[in-house]
Amino acid sequence: MADINSKLEIGVTTGPIRGSKKVHVGNRRVAMREISLEPSSGEPPVRVYDTSGPYTDPNATIDIQAGLPSLRREWIMGRGDVEEYDARLVKPEDNGQLGPDRSGGVPAFPNVVQRPLRAKAGQNVSQMHYARRGIITPEMEYVAERENLGREFVRREIEGNSWGAAIPEYVTPEFVRDEVARGRAIIPSNINHPESEPMAIGRNFLVKINANIGNSAVASDVAAEVDKMVWSIRWGADTVMDLSTGRNIHDTREWIIRNSPVPIGTVPIYQALEKVGGIAEELTWEIFRDTLIEQAEQGVDYFTIHAGVRLPYVPLAAKRMTGIVSRGGSIMAKWCLAHHKESFLYERFDDITEIMKAYDIAYSLGDGLRPGSIYDANDEAQFAELYTLGELTKRAWEQDVQVMIEGPGHVPMHKIKENMDKQLEACGEAPFYTLGPLVTDIAPGYDHITSGIGAAQIGWYGTAMLCYVTPKEHLGLPDRDDVKVGVVTYKLAAHAADLAKGHPAAQVRDDALSKARFEFRWRDQFNLSLDPDTAEQYHDQTLPAEGAKTAHFCSMCGPKFCSMKISQEVREFAAKQNQPSDRFLAADASAEDAEKGMAEMSKVFKETGSELYMGAGDREHD
Amino acid sequence: MADINSKLEIGVTTGPIRGSKKVHVGNRRVAMREISLEPSSGEPPVRVYDTSGPYTDPNATIDIQAGLPSLRREWIMGRGDVEEYDARLVKPEDNGQLGPDRSGGVPAFPNVVQRPLRAKAGQNVSQMHYARRGIITPEMEYVAERENLGREFVRREIEGNSWGAAIPEYVTPEFVRDEVARGRAIIPSNINHPESEPMAIGRNFLVKINANIGNSAVASDVAAEVDKMVWSIRWGADTVMDLSTGRNIHDTREWIIRNSPVPIGTVPIYQALEKVGGIAEELTWEIFRDTLIEQAEQGVDYFTIHAGVRLPYVPLAAKRMTGIVSRGGSIMAKWCLAHHKESFLYERFDDITEIMKAYDIAYSLGDGLRPGSIYDANDEAQFAELYTLGELTKRAWEQDVQVMIEGPGHVPMHKIKENMDKQLEACGEAPFYTLGPLVTDIAPGYDHITSGIGAAQIGWYGTAMLCYVTPKEHLGLPDRDDVKVGVVTYKLAAHAADLAKGHPAAQVRDDALSKARFEFRWRDQFNLSLDPDTAEQYHDQTLPAEGAKTAHFCSMCGPKFCSMKISQEVREFAAKQNQPSDRFLAADASAEDAEKGMAEMSKVFKETGSELYMGAGDREHD
Repeated sequence: MADINSKLEIGVTTGPIRGSKKVHVGNRRVAMREISLEPSSGEPPVRVYDTSGPYTDPNATIDIQAGLPSLRREWIMGRGDVEEYDARLVKPEDNGQLGPDRSGGVPAFPNVVQRPLRAKAGQNVSQMHYARRGIITPEMEYVAERENLGREFVRREIEGNSWGAAIPEYVTPEFVRDEVARGRAIIPSNINHPESEPMAIGRNFLVKINANIGNSAVASDVAAEVDKMVWSIRWGADTVMDLSTGRNIHDTREWIIRNSPVPIGTVPIYQALEKVGGIAEELTWEIFRDTLIEQAEQGVDYFTIHAGVRLPYVPLAAKRMTGIVSRGGSIMAKWCLAHHKESFLYERFDDITEIMKAYDIAYSLGDGLRPGSIYDANDEAQFAELYTLGELTKRAWEQDVQVMIEGPGHVPMHKIKENMDKQLEACGEAPFYTLGPLVTDIAPGYDHITSGIGAAQIGWYGTAMLCYVTPKEHLGLPDRDDVKVGVVTYKLAAHAADLAKGHPAAQVRDDALSKARFEFRWRDQFNLSLDPDTAEQYHDQTLPAEGAKTAHFCSMCGPKFCSMKISQEVREFAAKQNQPSDRFLAADASAEDAEKGMAEMSKVFKETGSELYMGAGDREHD
Repeated sequence: MADINSKLEIGVTTGPIRGSKKVHVGNRRVAMREISLEPSSGEPPVRVYDTSGPYTDPNATIDIQAGLPSLRREWIMGRGDVEEYDARLVKPEDNGQLGPDRSGGVPAFPNVVQRPLRAKAGQNVSQMHYARRGIITPEMEYVAERENLGREFVRREIEGNSWGAAIPEYVTPEFVRDEVARGRAIIPSNINHPESEPMAIGRNFLVKINANIGNSAVASDVAAEVDKMVWSIRWGADTVMDLSTGRNIHDTREWIIRNSPVPIGTVPIYQALEKVGGIAEELTWEIFRDTLIEQAEQGVDYFTIHAGVRLPYVPLAAKRMTGIVSRGGSIMAKWCLAHHKESFLYERFDDITEIMKAYDIAYSLGDGLRPGSIYDANDEAQFAELYTLGELTKRAWEQDVQVMIEGPGHVPMHKIKENMDKQLEACGEAPFYTLGPLVTDIAPGYDHITSGIGAAQIGWYGTAMLCYVTPKEHLGLPDRDDVKVGVVTYKLAAHAADLAKGHPAAQVRDDALSKARFEFRWRDQFNLSLDPDTAEQYHDQTLPAEGAKTAHFCSMCGPKFCSMKISQEVREFAAKQNQPSDRFLAADASAEDAEKGMAEMSKVFKETGSELYMGAGDREHD
């Protein structure tokens, strides 16, 4: 475990993840994590995608009170299409008026930006707008370098089934530009969040994961939330959503954004509802609009907008087993029914888009009617909304505003692919961003797993970002440990999806770890894993001695029985025999050689036709 | 948590799982667990499959020293085809000779059977033999009752994609007989393990899970292993494999079998190897045969036999990234190379089968060449062995001996289905029994999840039993907590597979829990979950007050924001409007009604054509 940076009022975990160091690659100085292996292995260091920001860089000074350095400020100003202006004044209701303040109050962030940025009159500062005009931004260059990760270490031809995605051999800045231009990927990057390290969400890039944090009316406080944000990106969260409700929403968000190197998303309707005392019927376009501006100026990178919850769909949800389980969705449904009017989010969608493009905020079109149970999966209400989100996607694209689409939720395995297929069809390949889905409802306390199963599958089918679920889902607010378990679970699900899609760089890490395992390089095995601390701790529970870290056995079988050990003896033994496979014994034999070898061997089988080889010979006919 | 039964030298967990009671159903008195719901709900109790045996029955007296009552003894004797005889004498080497004895010695089980049973000369006592002669055994009747679980509570027409399985609406004893007769299902039931409650493993039955326990040369002791066995079946393990190595193998196994209500599997080659001081080359057919008899008399229900590791396949494995990772496989590979002879397991296969049918022991044909890494998945060595296992399956069936086939291992998602398809083709639909598979290698410490993802998918595709993986996989021996996490993870994966296959009874529990969740029946939600203790504990971490158990909100959103609460208001509100959907608001509206309702509603949409309904109207065209 790294140390808690104790000199800060708000303590966060800093220091490198064990066995690895921060490196900066390319002319955009893209941050990556490099894991060096035991010299004995003769293996090169393994580079892995790094979402942790400066917090894992020993050379960086972390000051939560000041916030992170503005990596992108220069790039943004350099484009000459933005202007500074006096920020909207913070109102008391921005920090909520409801219920007792259990947090003991949240101090305002000391270093608030007084003059935020927005597009000059008539300008559009979205990455999609630049992309469509053929401009490759520094953000796109950064993404290209970041996504190419480790392709140079690829051992062999890549296999996989990407279900029609178009994953390139090598990611060029031009490829990134093209994906963003056609709406197939987004780079969430509010011009007022220059601290963020550019990342892409799209079907042809690495599958990303999101971690949710935030205060609620009954629990949590700002220090804990900032700590959770830093903790979640340490373990691999690509974006973080601040889902705070109740008190201190504005100030909590400021602390989070100023200290976040990853894009931050929110659901503005939550704060708007706080401003009207929690009474949905009293929501108005003016209050909502004012909230969008407030959050735009703070630097929120994407907004969840539930504009697909239309009046006519509400009755469809009314007959469900579990009705409407999306908070935003239920709020808008209530508003629609109360006024018997079409949703103001739907009616005012183009006005919202006007705001988005002035700050380059991406839409995350919310699935307010997602199913809340296996029983309700893939029903009429859900798909009615999905096709409306497709219609809204095209409207946002008309103004060059970036869009991703939120998806379910609770879906049994045999109904998962239909979600992906319909989304691709309805939303013109705009990135899909799903919550799980959970593949069964019977395991509260283990919903990081019930949903990790669904997430790995829908990620494989083409979902671009997976919203994590923690063990506390449906039961309570996640604590620090839950956040880590949720992030690691989703990281492995996303990686499994990348492997299955045939992402060129994905298998490098698996191969390195497998090889370390086979060669009993225990430390390398720990360091290459998603959670080195837990891996080593589990190993040491049975064999704590230092010597065991280099022992050619483990506690599972003991010294005499180790299959790996025997298997190595078998390899040496076989090497002595004169088998045609001899020359392919080296673990790093290329795929081509191996295939040549197979052909040659079966030729020998046929010639000799000796009984010994019958079994293998038979296989020729399959 | 239930109490530890302290009056026993060997402590095991007894007492009912919270919120449920043991019931016995039908004329075979099949044990099931019944979860009663809050009276307010007006819902019937939910019956769930129960693997826990007498340990969760308050009316049963548990005496580990005496073992469990002999449920099947009468049935077995009643068939008149078995005879008692003097048991083989236990030799010192049966309990191992290797290494220091860390367990402090294991006392012999006090109540050892002196005169075991075997088939009379010329008789065959396998369930498959009876089935093929048209006999429906009490075991088959028990299985039918057990598998029908809850079908009477099914809410609606079942959907699902079973990939060509033949899951019946209702399971009759005749259906069970037919499945066993054609080898598509097995009922592991050694006549010397009369304590076991009959269960079936087959593609057309509920997906089962296995838990591994056992001493190793460097850790564990018999008390801990018996406790783990009882603990694993409490949470849902359908069978348990005793993978003990090192010392005290014979006595440890006796304690486990005598106290196990579920079938016990072993890998006899482990003990045989102990008998020759761990030197694979010194293994002989005579020593192996003697070990089979020894374990047959003790009552082992299925043997893992690695007869598919043939001499010609060994070189194929030698060029792998991780060689041979199966212990049994590596032992046999070493033997084959050392003698440059074909495996004696392969050569003597029919002699082994002779022994199996005299006790009704099922084959679990081991995949000694399964891949040990993502890199090695679906390679030539693996499939060469699989087709040999198919050939051996047919040879076993010629003597009416029950067979299941073991499968991988480490397989990326896009290569999982090929494993199932080839197994069905090669092995004539004999039940498939897989270890995971893990879908990535980069998460040691989380391999219950990396493998749970693969297990859910291959279970959906048709695998009949999933061998659990615990968080300690690749790192150490699982402790009690690891066993529980492994079992619950695999239980939810198996259930997700049943749901996706469209098992008629599977969705009953999901629906009951979802409904309880929507109606804020927190206790019902906990009790219906796979792990009520953890669910309640997580909930109480944020809202410990008793009142919170009935509160119409939780700590995630707090009182004002609860989407479920708002959603219920929406439902009431919608009910007041005169929407054509009115009559379908009740959650228990049948699917037929709901469909009629949809049709009717869209008719109204078209007639009125009112702007309000445009959105819904548009959907008609999609």
